[in-house]
Amino acid sequence: MIPATEAMTTPLFSSPTDAEHAFYDAMAAGDLEAMMAVWTDGDEAVCVHPGGPRLVGAQAIRESFSEIFEGGTVQVERVGVRAYRHGDVAIHNLVEEISVTGRMGTQTVSVVATNVYVKSSRGWQMMLHHAATADADDEDEIERPSGPLH
Amino acid sequence: MIPATEAMTTPLFSSPTDAEHAFYDAMAAGDLEAMMAVWTDGDEAVCVHPGGPRLVGAQAIRESFSEIFEGGTVQVERVGVRAYRHGDVAIHNLVEEISVTGRMGTQTVSVVATNVYVKSSRGWQMMLHHAATADADDEDEIERPSGPLH
Repeated sequence: MIPATEAMTTPLFSSPTDAEHAFYDAMAAGDLEAMMAVWTDGDEAVCVHPGGPRLVGAQAIRESFSEIFEGGTVQVERVGVRAYRHGDVAIHNLVEEISVTGRMGTQTVSVVATNVYVKSSRGWQMMLHHAATADADDEDEIERPSGPLH
Repeated sequence: MIPATEAMTTPLFSSPTDAEHAFYDAMAAGDLEAMMAVWTDGDEAVCVHPGGPRLVGAQAIRESFSEIFEGGTVQVERVGVRAYRHGDVAIHNLVEEISVTGRMGTQTVSVVATNVYVKSSRGWQMMLHHAATADADDEDEIERPSGPLH
């Protein structure tokens, strides 16, 4: 039996999609504890913010999100989610449309993200988040069948 | 039985690392056929070059590497490979030190890459390559234990 208090503070995600929703909800709320509850707490966790270095381990990842959330919340609209699941591993690749508000008003920045989730006795958790700014043409996502050329 | 000619032209990679070596060997050689032999040929393949859009499917990926190789070969030194394998899926995250030669001489560009490999009856193949330029500080990879602060 899990004590009610622990169950309340330690969410168990029953699917990769649940974990992914919690990840972006935590971004939108700027909630550091909710964010870190999504991540595996081992040293295998890897996070790459757009243009940033590779962060390895939960502590370095926590510090990065702490800094990000000091600057405000991050509103992400997810488009083009491509999800693959192989047993206890799930790989999601998607485009994050991030609204950035500054002196010039609100602009949308497109970021391509790869998210990897693994399942353990603690449910599905994020093991890797790799995000990179896409170029201006990324609205025209190149998605074609892999058939032969004409 | 696989005919000898087909066996010669269709390499079977017996491990994710074998497939990864073949991927970077193909980059170094500018060999498009060797490159595409590494990739799964389904529509699930996803490739993101640094700063580029998301490419989906083998045909779009082939065209991108064809363009890259028209510009020359790509010499990559891999450092800090972190490899995770869960059954028939392997996730490698690494830093690519790419030598770029131009008018100002040879410079090294650091790129963080996530490579995903899947195993099928055709051996291990690349399903995803996500590469993004890292910032200037990436030599100081942030890699700390995930224990408590202090």
